[in-house]
Amino acid sequence: KRLGFDEVIYGKNKSTNQLIDIINLYKNKNLNFFCTGLHPEKINELEKVFPDLYFSRESGTARNFAYPETKISNSVGVITAGTSDAQVAYEAIETLRVLGIPFEKYIDIGVAGIHRFLHYLDDLRNHSVLIVIAGMEGALPSVVGGIFAQPIIAVPTSVGYGTALSGFTPLFAMLTSCANGITVVNIDNGFGAAMAAFRILQQIENKND
Amino acid sequence: KRLGFDEVIYGKNKSTNQLIDIINLYKNKNLNFFCTGLHPEKINELEKVFPDLYFSRESGTARNFAYPETKISNSVGVITAGTSDAQVAYEAIETLRVLGIPFEKYIDIGVAGIHRFLHYLDDLRNHSVLIVIAGMEGALPSVVGGIFAQPIIAVPTSVGYGTALSGFTPLFAMLTSCANGITVVNIDNGFGAAMAAFRILQQIENKND
Amino acid sequence: KRLGFDEVIYGKNKSTNQLIDIINLYKNKNLNFFCTGLHPEKINELEKVFPDLYFSRESGTARNFAYPETKISNSVGVITAGTSDAQVAYEAIETLRVLGIPFEKYIDIGVAGIHRFLHYLDDLRNHSVLIVIAGMEGALPSVVGGIFAQPIIAVPTSVGYGTALSGFTPLFAMLTSCANGITVVNIDNGFGAAMAAFRILQQIENKND
Amino acid sequence: KRLGFDEVIYGKNKSTNQLIDIINLYKNKNLNFFCTGLHPEKINELEKVFPDLYFSRESGTARNFAYPETKISNSVGVITAGTSDAQVAYEAIETLRVLGIPFEKYIDIGVAGIHRFLHYLDDLRNHSVLIVIAGMEGALPSVVGGIFAQPIIAVPTSVGYGTALSGFTPLFAMLTSCANGITVVNIDNGFGAAMAAFRILQQIENKND
Amino acid sequence: KRLGFDEVIYGKNKSTNQLIDIINLYKNKNLNFFCTGLHPEKINELEKVFPDLYFSRESGTARNFAYPETKISNSVGVITAGTSDAQVAYEAIETLRVLGIPFEKYIDIGVAGIHRFLHYLDDLRNHSVLIVIAGMEGALPSVVGGIFAQPIIAVPTSVGYGTALSGFTPLFAMLTSCANGITVVNIDNGFGAAMAAFRILQQIENKND
Amino acid sequence: KRLGFDEVIYGKNKSTNQLIDIINLYKNKNLNFFCTGLHPEKINELEKVFPDLYFSRESGTARNFAYPETKISNSVGVITAGTSDAQVAYEAIETLRVLGIPFEKYIDIGVAGIHRFLHYLDDLRNHSVLIVIAGMEGALPSVVGGIFAQPIIAVPTSVGYGTALSGFTPLFAMLTSCANGITVVNIDNGFGAAMAAFRILQQIENKND
Amino acid sequence: KRLGFDEVIYGKNKSTNQLIDIINLYKNKNLNFFCTGLHPEKINELEKVFPDLYFSRESGTARNFAYPETKISNSVGVITAGTSDAQVAYEAIETLRVLGIPFEKYIDIGVAGIHRFLHYLDDLRNHSVLIVIAGMEGALPSVVGGIFAQPIIAVPTSVGYGTALSGFTPLFAMLTSCANGITVVNIDNGFGAAMAAFRILQQIENKND
Amino acid sequence: KRLGFDEVIYGKNKSTNQLIDIINLYKNKNLNFFCTGLHPEKINELEKVFPDLYFSRESGTARNFAYPETKISNSVGVITAGTSDAQVAYEAIETLRVLGIPFEKYIDIGVAGIHRFLHYLDDLRNHSVLIVIAGMEGALPSVVGGIFAQPIIAVPTSVGYGTALSGFTPLFAMLTSCANGITVVNIDNGFGAAMAAFRILQQIENKND
Ligand SMILES: Nc1ncnc2c1ncn2[C@@H]1O[C@H](COP(=O)(O)O)[C@@H](O)[C@H]1O
Ligand SMILES: Nc1ncnc2c1ncn2[C@@H]1O[C@H](COP(=O)(O)O)[C@@H](O)[C@H]1O
Ligand SMILES: Nc1ncnc2c1ncn2[C@@H]1O[C@H](COP(=O)(O)O)[C@@H](O)[C@H]1O
Ligand SMILES: Nc1ncnc2c1ncn2[C@@H]1O[C@H](COP(=O)(O)O)[C@@H](O)[C@H]1O
Ligand SMILES: [Mg+2]
Ligand SMILES: [Mg+2]
Ligand SMILES: [Mg+2]
Ligand SMILES: [Mg+2]
Ligand SMILES: [Mg+2]
Ligand SMILES: [Mg+2]
Ligand SMILES: [Mg+2]
Ligand SMILES: [Mg+2]
Repeated sequence: KRLGFDEVIYGKNKSTNQLIDIINLYKNKNLNFFCTGLHPEKINELEKVFPDLYFSRESGTARNFAYPETKISNSVGVITAGTSDAQVAYEAIETLRVLGIPFEKYIDIGVAGIHRFLHYLDDLRNHSVLIVIAGMEGALPSVVGGIFAQPIIAVPTSVGYGTALSGFTPLFAMLTSCANGITVVNIDNGFGAAMAAFRILQQIENKND
Repeated sequence: KRLGFDEVIYGKNKSTNQLIDIINLYKNKNLNFFCTGLHPEKINELEKVFPDLYFSRESGTARNFAYPETKISNSVGVITAGTSDAQVAYEAIETLRVLGIPFEKYIDIGVAGIHRFLHYLDDLRNHSVLIVIAGMEGALPSVVGGIFAQPIIAVPTSVGYGTALSGFTPLFAMLTSCANGITVVNIDNGFGAAMAAFRILQQIENKND
Repeated sequence: KRLGFDEVIYGKNKSTNQLIDIINLYKNKNLNFFCTGLHPEKINELEKVFPDLYFSRESGTARNFAYPETKISNSVGVITAGTSDAQVAYEAIETLRVLGIPFEKYIDIGVAGIHRFLHYLDDLRNHSVLIVIAGMEGALPSVVGGIFAQPIIAVPTSVGYGTALSGFTPLFAMLTSCANGITVVNIDNGFGAAMAAFRILQQIENKND
Repeated sequence: KRLGFDEVIYGKNKSTNQLIDIINLYKNKNLNFFCTGLHPEKINELEKVFPDLYFSRESGTARNFAYPETKISNSVGVITAGTSDAQVAYEAIETLRVLGIPFEKYIDIGVAGIHRFLHYLDDLRNHSVLIVIAGMEGALPSVVGGIFAQPIIAVPTSVGYGTALSGFTPLFAMLTSCANGITVVNIDNGFGAAMAAFRILQQIENKND
Repeated sequence: KRLGFDEVIYGKNKSTNQLIDIINLYKNKNLNFFCTGLHPEKINELEKVFPDLYFSRESGTARNFAYPETKISNSVGVITAGTSDAQVAYEAIETLRVLGIPFEKYIDIGVAGIHRFLHYLDDLRNHSVLIVIAGMEGALPSVVGGIFAQPIIAVPTSVGYGTALSGFTPLFAMLTSCANGITVVNIDNGFGAAMAAFRILQQIENKND
Repeated sequence: KRLGFDEVIYGKNKSTNQLIDIINLYKNKNLNFFCTGLHPEKINELEKVFPDLYFSRESGTARNFAYPETKISNSVGVITAGTSDAQVAYEAIETLRVLGIPFEKYIDIGVAGIHRFLHYLDDLRNHSVLIVIAGMEGALPSVVGGIFAQPIIAVPTSVGYGTALSGFTPLFAMLTSCANGITVVNIDNGFGAAMAAFRILQQIENKND
Repeated sequence: KRLGFDEVIYGKNKSTNQLIDIINLYKNKNLNFFCTGLHPEKINELEKVFPDLYFSRESGTARNFAYPETKISNSVGVITAGTSDAQVAYEAIETLRVLGIPFEKYIDIGVAGIHRFLHYLDDLRNHSVLIVIAGMEGALPSVVGGIFAQPIIAVPTSVGYGTALSGFTPLFAMLTSCANGITVVNIDNGFGAAMAAFRILQQIENKND
Repeated sequence: KRLGFDEVIYGKNKSTNQLIDIINLYKNKNLNFFCTGLHPEKINELEKVFPDLYFSRESGTARNFAYPETKISNSVGVITAGTSDAQVAYEAIETLRVLGIPFEKYIDIGVAGIHRFLHYLDDLRNHSVLIVIAGMEGALPSVVGGIFAQPIIAVPTSVGYGTALSGFTPLFAMLTSCANGITVVNIDNGFGAAMAAFRILQQIENKND
């Protein structure tokens, strides 16, 4: 339970039947669970079987418990380069919500129009952790990391085509960023970015007590 | 200066002559600098030109200032899977030292003999951040991340041959780890891992003040 | 017939019509055959044409003969890291069954919660061969191989996304494992792992006679 | 002769002996030639044989003719992200020189400290073509392309390590840049970038006549 | 507005619902927009919602404004190697049209029958910029670049199979072309090629004024 | 000690100084060790420091103990496709020797002259395990596996050039072999193949007792 | 017409509508054409529009002319390793037929059961060219090339999974074959193999006249 | 002996000592041998030991027999795109010589200056087989194959940098060439191309007798 949930289910590689079995198992054991990676059609099928679960289509998730009260006092800024990156942001945001972490979102402020990003400089400075989500060339974390001193968790997305390499180009770009001390999670892994933020925020809270 | 140094020089792609020019420039400007990625032979050459610099062969670094006093109260655990990974650990450790961050090192406690790692469970729990360094299959961060709740910064190394892919296999393994919320930096990037730890520790300290 | 079957058909790259032709051919020749790699929909179509065959949906296989009696006295342990890896385990298990090999299965005991695995240490020690199945970072065989002295056949699976590289990351990780003497088969190749176990078990039995 | 030279020799894959033969051939034919891709040591050897050639070590080039007078009225801005990218810039600059094209250079103004780049906004606006050279994550052309309307020729460099992939990461990043209408040349190909600028500038001049 | 449009939407990674939201937003703001990367089925759905938009199926684009008058006096030649490359050409052509740029198209004149290309030598010489589109081995730009002195923008396409590598083979071939000064855009990126031509043509016009 | 050695040192990624430290450590602790991956030049240097060690240049190994008596009654056949693959065979053979396992070697009997292999059919049938070593296209294990029923451990080597891909082509070929139940180890990993054979042979012996 | 057809159409990357336009064009010009790469569903649609064309589903081809009489006196042997490779063989065979070349086919005689191949040694010796088709590890051409002296055209197929890499593993294996003088065509390219055979056979016939 | 030599030795992956052993072995057996892949320095060492062998530095080969008389009446044209490709041509030519095959060479006539190639059209038409050697984008075989009807053996070379991918780009380009019936050998494999020509020429001669 240490890392925020009784159980987390990764839904992408599981059939609907496998998911139904696992969900029933956890419900029978009275365990709280959070499930990610659910394609809209899987959600449609699961919703018929489990009308009492909480589903979120924009983030592709399901859970069997209400949002907890905010348990953490410091906040996370969730930034995306483009509008196409938004669905990864929603997976991160939904995870933050079920962990009781406050957040603010900043969608579509990538480097092709750098003024959009510069407009939010003051807002962004207030967050304890910045999650920066970008596809294509993945340049935004470099700019953010050059300006801000907070922990930065970069999330490459599979947005783009050709040389975007399904997200490997922004992944590699973020890992070899000329801005120092940026860390990176797997392609499209909004869940993992939120969990990494949770690890940091817990540490901040603990040391404050 | 926000991120700990006046200037950082990445020495790997620069010739000795380029390095001499840059170092002279910074010395003339009275700037403090930290230089990484120095092959032992480059150090030999630079030492002749700049006998007053501080060189560290095991970490491949140089600097023109003494270690600062410890400025940070929380500590970092630096863990490696094998002995061959040690030189990446030394780059991280040297960076922590020049940033005034306390640390402890745990070398050669990888998963092939899981008891070695289990032996340090209590020690490791005391650190605010864990830097976990591994080459070959890069499995150690998964085990660490399944047991500990702190922020974990995984560093893949180029140790291994054949399918180790010069570090891309542990890199990819760490990014797709089944342990949640692990973040990753570039292959052999001990410096970046320490900088990421610095970003987190600063945040902890700031909120404590 | 030496390797356990009259004929093995690999069903994945064949159309249903090709499969019908081949099956009729073998039936007319009175040959026993085992067919793997059958997608559920292909099974549905084949079942209409051949109601007398034995189909197994969870393993994607078909055969025209009943399970043989157990011919081998030593057993195989079939281990998976996650629940998503189970279908590869079932292909291995079905192959073991048609070869008359006793087995035990251990599903979802991967490294992210190492206690799950440690719980079965005594059971696992009893098997003559261990088949260890894992996707994502593929770390489980390293831990198993560090603890047990038996032959270990590692099977990477295509479970995961992004840097899991459709199974190439666990494949490469298993091949470069820091545990010694682990051998590996193709991605998702439960059939091949069981056949490799069969080769070993036959050798044990032969030498015992 | 249409593209500026009688002959261009690519020196990288040729042995010193091959180069000597080719140079003698062209000298005997009274042809002007420009040779690129010369490692410093090859230059040392060639210099002994041909003391009358013009060698440039920082760009790795040789020629048998003096710089022509400036023949083009519009200029090129040559920008690099880091100091390590400078040697690619010098290959471009040397090529511009032998083509009689005016230029200005801007070294080490990459995105990790975006203020450095912003400082030159007015200067950069005056050039007819911008050559933007960057290694590592290759983010600078995206920022430049989002601000300026001129033709932008992006040159990825092999500077970096690990996920920089010897220049493939900045190459792919530049090709999938979210800034529109950026074009790209081969990794480290300063020569090709200058030639592309030449094609554009010639077109401008022609239409002006 | 500098680069020709109020807004450009990349339609490929966006769901129809996301597209409807964005289009409504821009319509409400009275902004002109151009949308690319629309699969025929998405166009069918959008056409029902927005009967007043201009759709082009052969180029996969949509816009909410009539073609502007031709604003540029110099023209672009759009060349393809095969008939299968035509749809990328149409994306380039549609972009040129909405930018008010005159053009001529030359479809299916690739190197396998070099006479087809040689037939158009005189026509091609008249254009200020040549966009050369080719899949498979991508050899056409090398031949064009060896004959013509104009700016050449090469566009690799995903036409082909096996070693065509979904366009990476022509991409790499174009970047390493033995013809000097060719520049390249992303695979299938007809839009980007037209934008690059626009940058060049604007520069020619400006200098003419 | 379970897997045959007190300690195994992998020498490739360690400097001579690191090796000297480790060897001294183990000698002081009175531990037996076996070291692999030693380049001839490293052996030259180590021999000067440790004249009492046993070095083997053809296998690139060192040890501080005499060969044990043969402890295992069943034997291993070590087969190579070409003469260039011999050095990988020697690493396997040296490992078998220090483990006390009897073996026979068959060098240069690859598929390009299939008669060479057919000549040894009867000899090969007597071994309990076959280690099959091949570079280039790696076809030999498929032929061996189609004829023999024993456990087969295939070792790809880095012999070859171009599309041999430093051993990845034979590696992939062996993993996707049409012969059933072949298992594979890392490229050039003669040590690992011998260890895998040891795991199997131990199992045979144990069950015999 | 030199290479056997008025026109060849590659159907894979073209839509049904594009194909209808091209076919009508060629019919109106009274040109003979041969079309390859037609998915069964495209054939169904084209058959409705052009009931007078000759379609072949097993080879995925169409033509508007009857088979010519055999024009060539020497024959081609078409060999496949497995039954799954048969459809590539049919593309080669259909091409040979429309070129008037005699042939013999040998399906499913791959190396996993080397006796199947050895059975046909005498038959195979009679052909002037051997086309050898194999997926998975692609070992068959090495064995054929070691025994026979004729020209051998190897065709890798996309049959297999995981490390078969959609045909790149047999492609690379065939190119690095230890049998000398084997040549290779693109993955699944039965058409190209037949055309290469045609080039050779024409040369034989010409020199005989 | 069927394929022209008693023995062929591939020298690249063998140490000088290994080579000396093998050469002595063959000399003692009175076998004729041909050795390829010899680096100039290896030749220097071997020449001291075997002053009676015939060495060729430009092709990197050695043999212990004089050139045979020309045994074949038809000739081979050996074409290269650039001067840097010449050393691969020399390996092919030396192999043709020891096989007694007449040939003509055409160096540096690649597509960047298509007139160079067009100049030799009539000469090239006379050869029975064309070996076409090219690095970088590898476009020359496509142009040759579109014009000539003879068998064409394309040889990609490792000449180039960056996206030339050490020869994989011309390799892939040649395999996916839009000219029909071109066949390909491994990167830099001049030897293999000559052997493939030998297979074809033998067939022509045989049928003529
Ligand atoms: N979106 C996600 N990305 C990465 N890992 C996840 C995600 N969702 C769940 N997981 C992890 O996947 C594992 C569950 O795997 P399984 O046993 O196959 O369901 C747990 O470690 C989860 O925490
Ligand atoms: N699941 C499987 N994975 C790998 N190979 C298989 C599998 N099932 C069958 N095979 C092998 O595929 C080959 C049959 O190929 P084919 O002639 O194309 O049917 C035989 O060598 C089988 O033993
Ligand atoms: N630095 C460079 N990068 C790319 N191509 C170059 C370079 N320098 C020369 N070239 C081209 O290389 C070709 C000469 O190749 P070669 O005949 O092998 O010398 C010509 O097309 C040159 O224009
Ligand atoms: N340049 C070359 N390229 C490819 N294969 C070669 C070459 N030279 C020799 N070979 C082949 O390499 C094999 C000899 O391998 P080995 O037994 O390791 O010496 C034989 O099949 C030779 O015909
Ligand atoms: Mg946007
Ligand atoms: Mg160790
Ligand atoms: Mg699980
Ligand atoms: Mg800098
Ligand atoms: Mg065409
Ligand atoms: Mg040999
Ligand atoms: Mg078969
Ligand atoms: Mg040239």
